[in-house]
Amino acid sequence: MTRSSVPPPVTAVMDAASAWLPARMAVVEDRLAELAGGYGPTLGEEAEATLKAGGKRLRPILVLMAAGDRAGDRAIRAATAVELLHMATLVHDDVLDGAPVRRGRPTVVARSGRDRAVGVGDLLLSRAFGELAAGRGDGEVAELSSASVALALGELAQRSDAYDTSIGEERYLERCSLKTARLFESACRLGRLAAGGPGTESLAGFGREIGLGFQLLDDVLDVTGPPERTGKARGTDLLDGTVTLPLILARRLEPELERVELRGLDPAGAEEICDRIAATDALDEVRSRAKDGIEQAKGMIASDEFTDEERQLLGMIADGVVERYS
Amino acid sequence: MTRSSVPPPVTAVMDAASAWLPARMAVVEDRLAELAGGYGPTLGEEAEATLKAGGKRLRPILVLMAAGDRAGDRAIRAATAVELLHMATLVHDDVLDGAPVRRGRPTVVARSGRDRAVGVGDLLLSRAFGELAAGRGDGEVAELSSASVALALGELAQRSDAYDTSIGEERYLERCSLKTARLFESACRLGRLAAGGPGTESLAGFGREIGLGFQLLDDVLDVTGPPERTGKARGTDLLDGTVTLPLILARRLEPELERVELRGLDPAGAEEICDRIAATDALDEVRSRAKDGIEQAKGMIASDEFTDEERQLLGMIADGVVERYS
Repeated sequence: MTRSSVPPPVTAVMDAASAWLPARMAVVEDRLAELAGGYGPTLGEEAEATLKAGGKRLRPILVLMAAGDRAGDRAIRAATAVELLHMATLVHDDVLDGAPVRRGRPTVVARSGRDRAVGVGDLLLSRAFGELAAGRGDGEVAELSSASVALALGELAQRSDAYDTSIGEERYLERCSLKTARLFESACRLGRLAAGGPGTESLAGFGREIGLGFQLLDDVLDVTGPPERTGKARGTDLLDGTVTLPLILARRLEPELERVELRGLDPAGAEEICDRIAATDALDEVRSRAKDGIEQAKGMIASDEFTDEERQLLGMIADGVVERYS
Repeated sequence: MTRSSVPPPVTAVMDAASAWLPARMAVVEDRLAELAGGYGPTLGEEAEATLKAGGKRLRPILVLMAAGDRAGDRAIRAATAVELLHMATLVHDDVLDGAPVRRGRPTVVARSGRDRAVGVGDLLLSRAFGELAAGRGDGEVAELSSASVALALGELAQRSDAYDTSIGEERYLERCSLKTARLFESACRLGRLAAGGPGTESLAGFGREIGLGFQLLDDVLDVTGPPERTGKARGTDLLDGTVTLPLILARRLEPELERVELRGLDPAGAEEICDRIAATDALDEVRSRAKDGIEQAKGMIASDEFTDEERQLLGMIADGVVERYS
């Protein structure tokens, strides 16, 4: 009952359509390839594999055909967004199925594991909304999409770095920025934009700094516990292979810690490393950096773009980030 | 170095703030609870558990504080969206970490497994954009969000139904609608809206019908193969525990198939069931229903809201969905 030589419907439509359809579809393909390649080589390969495995492009072609020869930038972005969303679904479905191949190509989950596949799917899903919003000139949706992409990239970076004890401060801070600070920044920016208030970028900077401080202190808490306050065992990050600033700094202060191997660590081993980190000055150093960041944040809202009440309340939030952990 | 009796910063800010902040935050909480409960009881429990485990609500409070006492509906929606995105990240992070508890409560992945946790995270992420877009009156982003929510719900439904051979036609069609037809519908609607053309809802109906036909025929292909054309082994759905229309109909035609047990099936067993399904008239019946749907789809674009070229090209796509599989 199967016929293998039927040209795919897409090819037939492309041939039959006036020049507008293939020309616009080529723009969508370029845009998809650009987006797939836009997040570094590793991710690019995974996204590219997904792009190619996607196959028929029925959904973006439907968008363009629905728009007809009036189709402009908005339709092209909608077509790209729909295909990105479809790709995201494929990547996540393959995680659930543990599928080894799709259209004869290895899936992201088969190539790179479940962790990366969840992150790659989240990235594509988040990017879809940004693409659609850009076509509508909607800065707020684009902002949320950008934060959501950052969260996925941060998660992917953390997984790439797992168990690598040579990770340095710069890379750690970049990860904090993506995983935590970016959404604090967006929260401030979105609120200010929604109300049309002045000082949006100052407030975004404030959010970024307290987000960073929040993450630094959260990483201290993973070392100090106590579990009854944090709701999780001490050394959970170490057990995941996540190298954070307390360990990075402690390794400099106690050379013995340089020999620590995180793979195969058990909970008792993780607690022991926590104790060794806590025995150095590393935790005080991380706390002190977080506090400096919080002060810097408060400086960013010192101008007259902010009312006294705003400065007071935002200052309380900033101080609260430190107090909660001190 | 820890102080357990410090009031969380949020409480302090709430106390210090004029009435506007607590009042607006209460609206955000209500909105989050409403969204968590809005997708049926099972999902509601998972989303509610995530909501409660989210804890501090620092991010939505930052949104509201950034908006200040000018904060209206847009700021409230932005605050809700930011928290939904944060929740989505928590759910997906816990999948990767395999984390058993968060803030002392069981995680979604611990309660319901990895499959549901990926879906719940996707749902929350998709919903975040819809929430933000609604505050902006942006129908196109809301449309993509709605399609993305449907995809996640479809995936969740498929996982809930896994290995349940008593699944009936109605439930199967509902799943197809969520998993496939909804995005085809959105593709058509988004394209038409982008170009400002007439007949948006007719075209959305066309997309829905061909999406449904596409899924029906895809499910036939899983039974017939051949693998070199489909890029996957025959009976992949059966191995996943996914009951599709070919099996549902074949069970009626061949009572022996009622005794089929999908759990513990191996690839050879799955191929054998495929052969038994193919030996009935079930596949012809599914193909025939898909073709009827395609004809119905073409009828939906027969009006003068569509040009001759549009009708011709869209008709080719519709026919192509059938031809590819016949």
